[in-house]
Amino acid sequence: MIGLKNDRFLRALARQPVDQTPIWMMRQAGRYLPEYRQTRAQAGDFMALCTNPSLACEVTLQPLDRYPLDAAILFSDILTIPDAMGLGLYFEAGEGPRFQRPIRTRAAIDALPVPSMADALDYVMKAVTTIRSALNGRVPLIGFSGSPWTLATYMIEGGGSKEYRYAKGLMYSDPDALHVLLSKLADAVTDYLNAQIAAGAQAVQIFDTWGGVLTAPAYDEFSLAYMARIVNGLTREADGRRVPVILFTKGGGAWLERMADTGCDALGLDWTVDLGACRQRVGERVALQGNLDPSVLFGSDALIASEVHRLLTAFGPHCGHVFNLGHGINQHVEPSRAASMIEAVQRISREIHAGGN
Amino acid sequence: MIGLKNDRFLRALARQPVDQTPIWMMRQAGRYLPEYRQTRAQAGDFMALCTNPSLACEVTLQPLDRYPLDAAILFSDILTIPDAMGLGLYFEAGEGPRFQRPIRTRAAIDALPVPSMADALDYVMKAVTTIRSALNGRVPLIGFSGSPWTLATYMIEGGGSKEYRYAKGLMYSDPDALHVLLSKLADAVTDYLNAQIAAGAQAVQIFDTWGGVLTAPAYDEFSLAYMARIVNGLTREADGRRVPVILFTKGGGAWLERMADTGCDALGLDWTVDLGACRQRVGERVALQGNLDPSVLFGSDALIASEVHRLLTAFGPHCGHVFNLGHGINQHVEPSRAASMIEAVQRISREIHAGGN
Repeated sequence: MIGLKNDRFLRALARQPVDQTPIWMMRQAGRYLPEYRQTRAQAGDFMALCTNPSLACEVTLQPLDRYPLDAAILFSDILTIPDAMGLGLYFEAGEGPRFQRPIRTRAAIDALPVPSMADALDYVMKAVTTIRSALNGRVPLIGFSGSPWTLATYMIEGGGSKEYRYAKGLMYSDPDALHVLLSKLADAVTDYLNAQIAAGAQAVQIFDTWGGVLTAPAYDEFSLAYMARIVNGLTREADGRRVPVILFTKGGGAWLERMADTGCDALGLDWTVDLGACRQRVGERVALQGNLDPSVLFGSDALIASEVHRLLTAFGPHCGHVFNLGHGINQHVEPSRAASMIEAVQRISREIHAGGN
Repeated sequence: MIGLKNDRFLRALARQPVDQTPIWMMRQAGRYLPEYRQTRAQAGDFMALCTNPSLACEVTLQPLDRYPLDAAILFSDILTIPDAMGLGLYFEAGEGPRFQRPIRTRAAIDALPVPSMADALDYVMKAVTTIRSALNGRVPLIGFSGSPWTLATYMIEGGGSKEYRYAKGLMYSDPDALHVLLSKLADAVTDYLNAQIAAGAQAVQIFDTWGGVLTAPAYDEFSLAYMARIVNGLTREADGRRVPVILFTKGGGAWLERMADTGCDALGLDWTVDLGACRQRVGERVALQGNLDPSVLFGSDALIASEVHRLLTAFGPHCGHVFNLGHGINQHVEPSRAASMIEAVQRISREIHAGGN
């Protein structure tokens, strides 16, 4: 509570009543905003922006200055941990992230250092502290990390991938080596998120962007088990308030019950699943976050309102929903369309919450 | 029956008893085979191979000469229909298919011709006849087409896509225009598959590669409805035998019941779903085809056998299973690993079928 002026996001994650459904957007500080593009141009490149706490704070707050959002999310990259482990993160124009030194052998995995993240990623902790101070209690600040499996895919492939030839090849040809890597990453992610919480993050989200490319048993063994280990190793209270943990596996709609078993507070949903059916499946165990198709923001204001209405009524007048897109906002979206969505969520959900429990 | 020496594939699709589970592999005539790479090099490029009935026949038969497979699949591209409509299909090295003239406006969609596929894609029908004759009843020949939604995404984006900015943008901003396009494509696909059946295809598969990027209601409206229309318009008997229709939506695991409602004979499954659970969901309504993770073929022979065993026992001693990969075979797989999988399927399934009903 200490100075938190808007706690709808934390209340919804705790499945407590709210006046309107809280909303934030994955990738809300991003290229669709002209003010972001301007700051990024000033910084030079993406990593220069991430590693400068003052600029990271500036872009984190940009969407909050434009829209009545209910949470801020730390501006950073999901690949900071492998970079801190020495893989040499870089970005090629139009190509996404790359590593100079991908790791594909047991020897390279065994030799991989796990430095203290508070030290190695000091710039992230400084960004958290700076943002938290600048927010001054306006809304809660979300910290985040990639999941061990998701980080491992980038580290093994050396960048993004369509078929995961090397990562899944290692999984099926030398699963023990992959387990050693995932175990190191689970330790690193736990350490990293705890350092973010110590620096001021009031909730954390684990992005399992590539868990959905696995079979059901492989998901359990190579992705979910390590996320569960992280959830169990996290500091769950700060400033006298619970620090909720959100798990988001893109393409993980079939596995929600098992995800809820980890002890997390909420599940992020992509847009392919029906929100009402998901709520019935997980019941009172966890809150749900999502799940508008990001492409809806290419439609008219009327279409956006209609899709928001469909989604909010599918969830119904229950506690435990945080509105979000089912994936990051597309860089080609007009900022006015995001405003339209946020207005619709707040207007329609107020009616639903006034009528329900 | 007329001269069909191995009808396990058709029997399994009709949910009749078989001595062993039939198997074929999506993309079985492909780059992982050195003999394919040689023929393709001779042909010059991929489209030269597709448009030459004699060479298309040669590569279609290559995997059958190497492995004891239970079906052949026509060698062709899924984008022949848009090419016949005048979009100008071409391939850039390492970049996948592209169209010279993508269509993104209502006017362009209205102006799009729907030529007779038997005429416009005469080379495909000649390939079917040639392959059918060369097979001489060895195994059945599968014809195929992309689904209307999948073809539309390529036609609108101008090639492959990660975010479907234009296709989903059109869906949300001008759904009527997209419906006109999908309706034309449903007519074209029906015509195309019926021409393949008339030329000798003994089963057909509709590849809905990108249905899984849609929300549940959008999948129903923009993909499934048009596949249902095609299923209802197809010739379902030839040579006195049923011509089964297989629907394959990658990422469509949540929608199997609705897919079975189309009246198709079988559903193709990707590797993310549990085969036993899927069988329970669809019951006796349709056969199932799938669903080994293609990356399993990067593992050892022991791992491959273990995954094959897991999958066959998940389905159990029931009728109605065609073994396949959950997606096309990866070009980097060693051909000996495919042999190992096929041997395991035949050996293990013979034991299961001998013990069960």
